[in-house]
Amino acid sequence: MKCTKCGKPASVKLRHYNIKLCKEHFNEFIEQRVEKAIKKFKMFGRNSKILIAVSGGKDSVSLWHMLKKLGYEVDALFIRAGKSGMVQKAQEIVEKNAELLNTKLHIVDATEYFGGLSTQEISIMLRRPVCSICGVVRRYLMNKFAYENGYDVVVTGHNLNDEASVLLGNILHWQEGYLERQWPLLPKTHEKLVPKAKPLVLNYEEDIKLYATLNEIPHLEMACPFSVGATSLVYKKILRELEEEQPGITLNFYLGFLKRKKEPKFEVEGLRECKECGYPTTAEVCSFCRLRKQVEKRKNKTPA
Amino acid sequence: MKCTKCGKPASVKLRHYNIKLCKEHFNEFIEQRVEKAIKKFKMFGRNSKILIAVSGGKDSVSLWHMLKKLGYEVDALFIRAGKSGMVQKAQEIVEKNAELLNTKLHIVDATEYFGGLSTQEISIMLRRPVCSICGVVRRYLMNKFAYENGYDVVVTGHNLNDEASVLLGNILHWQEGYLERQWPLLPKTHEKLVPKAKPLVLNYEEDIKLYATLNEIPHLEMACPFSVGATSLVYKKILRELEEEQPGITLNFYLGFLKRKKEPKFEVEGLRECKECGYPTTAEVCSFCRLRKQVEKRKNKTPA
Repeated sequence: MKCTKCGKPASVKLRHYNIKLCKEHFNEFIEQRVEKAIKKFKMFGRNSKILIAVSGGKDSVSLWHMLKKLGYEVDALFIRAGKSGMVQKAQEIVEKNAELLNTKLHIVDATEYFGGLSTQEISIMLRRPVCSICGVVRRYLMNKFAYENGYDVVVTGHNLNDEASVLLGNILHWQEGYLERQWPLLPKTHEKLVPKAKPLVLNYEEDIKLYATLNEIPHLEMACPFSVGATSLVYKKILRELEEEQPGITLNFYLGFLKRKKEPKFEVEGLRECKECGYPTTAEVCSFCRLRKQVEKRKNKTPA
Repeated sequence: MKCTKCGKPASVKLRHYNIKLCKEHFNEFIEQRVEKAIKKFKMFGRNSKILIAVSGGKDSVSLWHMLKKLGYEVDALFIRAGKSGMVQKAQEIVEKNAELLNTKLHIVDATEYFGGLSTQEISIMLRRPVCSICGVVRRYLMNKFAYENGYDVVVTGHNLNDEASVLLGNILHWQEGYLERQWPLLPKTHEKLVPKAKPLVLNYEEDIKLYATLNEIPHLEMACPFSVGATSLVYKKILRELEEEQPGITLNFYLGFLKRKKEPKFEVEGLRECKECGYPTTAEVCSFCRLRKQVEKRKNKTPA
């Protein structure tokens, strides 16, 4: 198997691009697709103050390495959502990568906002799916930290398969609101909302896994234990099956959607400031503060 | 298990509707969904001269029975596309149903247009997928027969899963032309083009199978042998998997598409009459006549 670019022995074969690449040209290929996403969707520039939200998983950590390699100045933020062994292990992994990359790593402990409770404990207490709680908490704290520390953009590790599976689900259920907003960059729509960018959207999940492995980037091997049974995984499985039959379909499907999208609609009607914390929301009290109040109320009810 | 309608013992459970029904109410339920499709999409009326294209498969044959039961006057057309045992068996089945329903059955032998060759033989000769040849031949001969015999509409047995899987494929590949035209009724767009209707579009394939079985309607058990490996089957399999997770998603997906479709675009630009046969085409010679010429040319080349 020869590298399509240089003819040297290839170490990887990428069916969805129908190419074989040696390690060097594979790295280059994947990194160029990140650079392409950044430029194509005007995500940020070399002088932007960039904050990457890292979970310890292969996507965010690999992206962290790629951005540094591409010459971007990037600090990292790790949000502790609990005290489990997995959280501890994830923190150790991101600390190790911060060392390797010689970059600033900020750690925010979400449990401090909920009297020490983890998102899992909150989910049990309120009988709500942990993913919905985790999503509210992470989005809020990422934005809050980025805004209060003057970052120009928050970067997350969402990859092509993440975006295409969300897209497939939103089309199957005709979720027009979400379809209108889905875009690789969520620009500034309020003074206190920091733009959010997904530079990995042009890269397949399996290629990022390969990138992390080939370049021995420390990362969590296990997926989030709470993701088991998540609907998005159903759509991911379906896209993987389709790729078996039609290599490249995931990318064509996602790019076809972006290409046909006239003007993504980001403005959120009725955005105002939460009367508790002052951060933007469409309700009187934002979902994060509502969550805090619910937890507080429930804690006061339960005997110590 | 009790019938949701009458409380008597139910013989079927339909997950996608979350109902259980006795045979009588199951028949009624499925037939009403055919009547609903006919009315909702203004397919035809009680006085329309209706021609149903029957293949011997469960869909077209069950629909034939349903339309008779719903009080529509309907003649049937069976197109012989070859001489295989399966074609023979299919013909016997449609003849038997014609007897049961006491309705006129017309039989057209497609091989007569191709010097006796079957669509399979043509596909081997021209190295083209048999489905593409079969599609051209059937659509042409159905329309020709219907037009020349004064029918108001041609009815086919395409069911919900057929339509939803075509839709899924067209969305995944952003086939805008097909998406614009996909509609349960293809109205008259040319003097010599007879409208085409699909009254089974609101019924799940598995329910039609159940209907044929419960009502002991003679039908071919085997799918068309040439359909093996067809791309549409990939999408059908995916929709079945989705139904396992989210019962009812196929119907919601398809209805959501129809609901959001402003005005289906049926007009075909540049439609003119084929200089060979006079039937409408966008080319100088229609695909059917081109096919005949190719076969003729190839036959003349090969020594007898």
